[in-house]
Amino acid sequence: MHSPVPAVGGRSHGCKQRFEAERGGPAIACSPTPISRLLGSESEPDQAAHCTDGEERGPRRHPGCWKMLTVAMCMALLGCLQAQELRGHVSVILLGATGDLARKYLWQGLFQLYLDEAGKDYSFSFHGAALTSTKQGQAFIAKVLESLSCPEDVAPDRCAELKGQFQRLSAYRHLATSEDYMALSKDIEAQVQHGGLREAGRIFYFSVPPFAYADIARNINSSCRPGPGAWLRVVLEKPFGHDHLSAQQLATELGGFFREEEMYRVDHYLGKQAVAQILPFRDQNRKALDGLWSRHHVERVEIIMKETVDAEGRTSFYEEYGVIRDVLQNHLTEVLTLVAMELPHNISSSESVLQHKLRAFRALRGLQKGSAVLGQYQAYSEQVRREQQKPDSFRSLTPTFAGVLVHMDNLRWEGVPFILMSGKALDERVGYVRILFRNQAYCVQNDEHWVADQSQCLPRQIVFYIGHGELGSPAVLVSRNLFRPSLPSESWKGLGARPGLRLFGRPLSDFYAYRPVREQDAYSVLISRIFHGRKDSFVTTENLLASWGFWTPLLDSLAHEVPRLYPGGAENGHLLDFEFSGAQLYFSQRQPERLVPGPGPAPMPSGFQVLKAKYRESPLISAWPEELIAKLADDIEATAVRAVRRFGTFHLALSGGSSPVPLFQQLATRHYGFPWAHTHLWLVDERCVPLWDPESNFQHLQTHLLQHVRVPYYNIHPMPVHLHQRLCAEEDQGAQTYASEISALVANSSFDLVLLGMGADGHTASLFPQSPSGLDGEQLVVLTESPSRPFQRMSLSLPLINRARKVAVLVMGRVKREITMLVSRVGHEPKKWPISGVLPSSGQLVWYMDYEAFLG
Amino acid sequence: MHSPVPAVGGRSHGCKQRFEAERGGPAIACSPTPISRLLGSESEPDQAAHCTDGEERGPRRHPGCWKMLTVAMCMALLGCLQAQELRGHVSVILLGATGDLARKYLWQGLFQLYLDEAGKDYSFSFHGAALTSTKQGQAFIAKVLESLSCPEDVAPDRCAELKGQFQRLSAYRHLATSEDYMALSKDIEAQVQHGGLREAGRIFYFSVPPFAYADIARNINSSCRPGPGAWLRVVLEKPFGHDHLSAQQLATELGGFFREEEMYRVDHYLGKQAVAQILPFRDQNRKALDGLWSRHHVERVEIIMKETVDAEGRTSFYEEYGVIRDVLQNHLTEVLTLVAMELPHNISSSESVLQHKLRAFRALRGLQKGSAVLGQYQAYSEQVRREQQKPDSFRSLTPTFAGVLVHMDNLRWEGVPFILMSGKALDERVGYVRILFRNQAYCVQNDEHWVADQSQCLPRQIVFYIGHGELGSPAVLVSRNLFRPSLPSESWKGLGARPGLRLFGRPLSDFYAYRPVREQDAYSVLISRIFHGRKDSFVTTENLLASWGFWTPLLDSLAHEVPRLYPGGAENGHLLDFEFSGAQLYFSQRQPERLVPGPGPAPMPSGFQVLKAKYRESPLISAWPEELIAKLADDIEATAVRAVRRFGTFHLALSGGSSPVPLFQQLATRHYGFPWAHTHLWLVDERCVPLWDPESNFQHLQTHLLQHVRVPYYNIHPMPVHLHQRLCAEEDQGAQTYASEISALVANSSFDLVLLGMGADGHTASLFPQSPSGLDGEQLVVLTESPSRPFQRMSLSLPLINRARKVAVLVMGRVKREITMLVSRVGHEPKKWPISGVLPSSGQLVWYMDYEAFLG
Repeated sequence: MHSPVPAVGGRSHGCKQRFEAERGGPAIACSPTPISRLLGSESEPDQAAHCTDGEERGPRRHPGCWKMLTVAMCMALLGCLQAQELRGHVSVILLGATGDLARKYLWQGLFQLYLDEAGKDYSFSFHGAALTSTKQGQAFIAKVLESLSCPEDVAPDRCAELKGQFQRLSAYRHLATSEDYMALSKDIEAQVQHGGLREAGRIFYFSVPPFAYADIARNINSSCRPGPGAWLRVVLEKPFGHDHLSAQQLATELGGFFREEEMYRVDHYLGKQAVAQILPFRDQNRKALDGLWSRHHVERVEIIMKETVDAEGRTSFYEEYGVIRDVLQNHLTEVLTLVAMELPHNISSSESVLQHKLRAFRALRGLQKGSAVLGQYQAYSEQVRREQQKPDSFRSLTPTFAGVLVHMDNLRWEGVPFILMSGKALDERVGYVRILFRNQAYCVQNDEHWVADQSQCLPRQIVFYIGHGELGSPAVLVSRNLFRPSLPSESWKGLGARPGLRLFGRPLSDFYAYRPVREQDAYSVLISRIFHGRKDSFVTTENLLASWGFWTPLLDSLAHEVPRLYPGGAENGHLLDFEFSGAQLYFSQRQPERLVPGPGPAPMPSGFQVLKAKYRESPLISAWPEELIAKLADDIEATAVRAVRRFGTFHLALSGGSSPVPLFQQLATRHYGFPWAHTHLWLVDERCVPLWDPESNFQHLQTHLLQHVRVPYYNIHPMPVHLHQRLCAEEDQGAQTYASEISALVANSSFDLVLLGMGADGHTASLFPQSPSGLDGEQLVVLTESPSRPFQRMSLSLPLINRARKVAVLVMGRVKREITMLVSRVGHEPKKWPISGVLPSSGQLVWYMDYEAFLG
Repeated sequence: MHSPVPAVGGRSHGCKQRFEAERGGPAIACSPTPISRLLGSESEPDQAAHCTDGEERGPRRHPGCWKMLTVAMCMALLGCLQAQELRGHVSVILLGATGDLARKYLWQGLFQLYLDEAGKDYSFSFHGAALTSTKQGQAFIAKVLESLSCPEDVAPDRCAELKGQFQRLSAYRHLATSEDYMALSKDIEAQVQHGGLREAGRIFYFSVPPFAYADIARNINSSCRPGPGAWLRVVLEKPFGHDHLSAQQLATELGGFFREEEMYRVDHYLGKQAVAQILPFRDQNRKALDGLWSRHHVERVEIIMKETVDAEGRTSFYEEYGVIRDVLQNHLTEVLTLVAMELPHNISSSESVLQHKLRAFRALRGLQKGSAVLGQYQAYSEQVRREQQKPDSFRSLTPTFAGVLVHMDNLRWEGVPFILMSGKALDERVGYVRILFRNQAYCVQNDEHWVADQSQCLPRQIVFYIGHGELGSPAVLVSRNLFRPSLPSESWKGLGARPGLRLFGRPLSDFYAYRPVREQDAYSVLISRIFHGRKDSFVTTENLLASWGFWTPLLDSLAHEVPRLYPGGAENGHLLDFEFSGAQLYFSQRQPERLVPGPGPAPMPSGFQVLKAKYRESPLISAWPEELIAKLADDIEATAVRAVRRFGTFHLALSGGSSPVPLFQQLATRHYGFPWAHTHLWLVDERCVPLWDPESNFQHLQTHLLQHVRVPYYNIHPMPVHLHQRLCAEEDQGAQTYASEISALVANSSFDLVLLGMGADGHTASLFPQSPSGLDGEQLVVLTESPSRPFQRMSLSLPLINRARKVAVLVMGRVKREITMLVSRVGHEPKKWPISGVLPSSGQLVWYMDYEAFLG
């Protein structure tokens, strides 16, 4: 594929190019690529790139566009047939050509592009643009061009010759005003015409700070678009905003100048060879991975980028961003989607890859504050003070270390922890993605005798080793007890033995290990992909916004979080280790300063006592929220076990609202002895909305409880508020239907337990003050009116509630303080305070109130 | 607790005992134990042991028993107050006293009992009984008694003195006829009377083959029961049957002679110190374990007993039993229940422990043939031939190695693999229970720097080391990164350093490790527990039958399974390693002889092609069952994805019967991309039974599909066959209700996919030949009659089915061959062959038939 020794020569731009005949004549070179493009294969997102209004040169699409496109295609096809005369020309304009990134990577990447492509279908010119004066710029460029290097397999003489060719095609250009851009465009057109060429396209590489984007974009759009039939590609470097809103604003702004398919947002991680190999690896090893790549086999996925350097000298940038915006939101998230996405049938289709990636974003479970742990190396605040002249009292909250636990809400990955971690001032520099598989074997021999490539009990892992670390190069590692992977032999070769080297707890010899035949810098890889229009190696607007949509809530919730300080380097010890339990992440080591807040040990929640007293002459249980919920859950379980033992079933009626949610979670995750298979679940009240409405009480119950326990379908009794496709219509007799169901299934219509809440207005269930029904009479289930939306409700009646064997009323939060005090004093006034009418005729009433509700 | 140096002396039985005053006078010794018993604390299952009809001495309870019991309690209380005069006497009758087990363990155990207890509340006499002649028996006993050993801390002189005392209390007794038993009883009574004692109880230890049980039991029951106020305990040794039926027969037989509380079935594993420590450990470390002891934290549990010896010399026994009956059904299962059971609040209550254990049995998921792997050491068949004079052609199928995967169907353990393994001729002798916890940490430093007691990334495990192995003694091990356990310091002490010793992949220093202060043989432990009436250390009839109930179906299904041959010892290599996937267990290494059945490679199922053809002018897909199901599942998923993309929902109507079950399983476990959240599930037909009836089609769907995927409650549409608590009553209009639901939710009443079957009589859905309704007309849903039970059905009508966008008919098995041929030839005759009326008006029809149905 690569032809590292192109024999194309040329003089500086503006002169007619001298063509040297090459292997693969023009006719052959022309037909395969352009024709497949013209036929609109999926791999070519630029197929409609020429389909714009030629005069306006704006991004809007002309109404008769597709017709024009067809014409254009035919013309291009004709053009292609004439290509012996009209060779395609590509102009690359590197904006910020004198900057750091350009000096370090981009010029080299352009040189590599020239080496790879110039001998084929196109001729090139390279314009290094900046605001620097022409003289200074020229001097800079000359120096950079002189420092370029050839691949190892090119002889020094040959290399000098190639560099000479590249130097002659490259020039510095002062580019500031719109006149400058117009002039550039004219020069390119002239160059193309003089050369007897056809313009193929222009690449503008933005290696400039984001604040400069808008001006440049405007100038390009208005003054420097190529003519019809040639494409425009603009390459953008991060940061792409600071959160979802700013990213959206930036995207909207750019969208005013460029079409989506013209923009190539670089995440240079996607150009790292090991990262770029993830999808091809999954594709080429489809058969072996098909049975492995899921929650049934994967124990965890680690996506890690560790740095030893700190932020010194860069704090003005870093202080604005922090590690999550700097690394996790972009690099690690991109890698995550490559691992987690469903594998497209055809991975060479950019569009298909991008679509699947977007779906992976949609499957991400939302992050909570508890999903992350944050750290900051100790010297950071001092560095910020020094570099930004902050006062001595300044303490930064910017994290320089973060561990984040990500879960995917789909059947493939449900429950599998994806651990994302990055930090500065750590003990080593290394980046990797590690997929660790579950151990699903038992090895009968004593472990002393296990043989690495046979024992299924030794760790089984696949590692995309991004770089650095003990290995020092990119690599793909597959445990030998897993399978022998297939990798393209032209680009990946076996890694030599490295006795003594251990990786991820095992000697290197335990792995099938591969490294690139030729190590390539990420920017070289990406520049080639831009040239080839491989949009799937870049971040589309949709993907960018999906990523920010995922990260922004976490960033917001962590804005005032104090990161744990760490000394840096090997001294960190186990200080930054973290653990997860469910969706919660926390540091393994408690921080000593938090454990010793004063002379004695700090009070722990479990140290508080559950208070037992009386309220309205019934037992009252009061505690801090967590203990209260735990106690209530315990009591419900005990009641359930007793009921099932005595009657074979347990009939539980649950209220809606947000208070019971932690109770549901407690019941779902902690109560192993709960007889769910014999429990019937009823609703105390319901809003007249469809069951699938987020406002529906049933929907709460489903999300927080039913999805986690195994209650048989026919033991679940939602209220029939949505009969005949309408909501709580009197004539549908939903209340009567529910009442009959209760009468039929619940002995004596006595629920074993009814869980109620109490509103700040004294309502309970959906029985509101002054309700015309449900407070007395014969009706078991009633339709009622709420003072707040949605107004219509269905509710168990007070008489039915009072037939229960046990009624528990859960009251939580400071907002309930006043009504709690009030109701403690009133008598039996259900018309005024429906809650005061709760008094089981032969059952038991227990109040559960947290301290805030009870003590204020 | 233990008083290893009792100072009680005595002469041989039959003589008046000489009492020496001891520390803890009689009044003190009397009150704590007996009073708590008389008050009926739960820990004393023998509380009603005296409550029998004194004259009949049978196991039946007198009607006025409880009144008598109260009287007896009061008398016993009085007796206790008089105990200074009337000391309790316990007679131990060891049946089979000259046998192997008696010689090796039981006499020593009785001596230990004497050492532990004789100084306290009771006097003892020991009767070694057998069928051997008196002279031979006496000589044998004398020899055994001479060989008894004292605990290490007893000085030789003192030991000789104690042995002398024990020898004088012990005598041989020929015990064959009922007269012998009567004489024994008289002798005991006389001895008690002469000694001025009160008879406390008699222990009969059956160390005899099971065939002798019945006779002995009859003799004891009829001629040798102690008088009122004294207890009887009979101790039984395995085997307790060969399967569920034989165990039940044996239990019934014994139940004719003894009450449940009189029987002590020994599983000597329960006397192993590490096993006996499991519940106390869980109890004493309740707080630390509470958050760990569940599926959320436990990765796996391994319950292992490896032997190096083989069955040589014992093949006549072994050939009848095999390793599952010999070790797994009893020892390993007992251990399993101790680990898995819910921990009783009070573990000193035998009854409570036994109840919880029984519940653990109930939670065991049934075993399938695929739940086990079997092996047999290569020399075994030859040993059987030699020892049992079998012909050269004889090959035994008896397994000498088994690995079994057990799952618990409860919320605590769901999904956690319990691996039970035992075998002979393995590489080491060792027994252990290992609870391995999930790794839920990420350790930020390179693993070279992990510190064992701090790093949460190193293995976290709790091991009850039963004995032998590299450690050479019982032990309790807890990883230091887990928690520091609490163990009773009087019986467990820290294990000294053993540099270089690694256990379970880690150096011993990684564990908090404890060993018994005094190593005790299992029989000594159990004999003490019999004496103390701790029934929870024994196997009750209920538990025994529950265990056989669990194992018998597996044993039956494996009866003709050929075990994998293994060379034995270290040579086994990885040959016996096994893996699990879901509930399936299989050897990790394919057996070479199976891989190479002939000159070429054997055909693999995946090598077969899916055949595409036409059937009744519609596409036919035919394959072997597994591929057919896989293909159908793929097609359904593709249809679902397309439908959701186009319409936002996917309406799928599924048939009942057994054919779709593997399809459901395939869909539930393999199809990660299936859009369940947007899928509506409808029934094609239903039997008129309640939804929870095992016959209900919906129940199938729930068990095999709905429990494993997340279809929202309101997207599930069972047929309303059970309205108003009655089945398919015309006047309840269930069919019309279902039809309205379909009309309301399914656009144009066109299902996206209907899955049908075909009956051997040509029926489909529940539309049977000559059905008066459903074959044409306007009705969408109809009630029909089936020729087989349950007769009443509800079914989608042919016109509704034919409105579907796609109809798939799944036909599997040889039994369908004839109808398949027949239907291939008939025209459109739905009245005669309802299946012939399936022809979607604008949708697609596809036939899925396995080769047996299609090719016969």
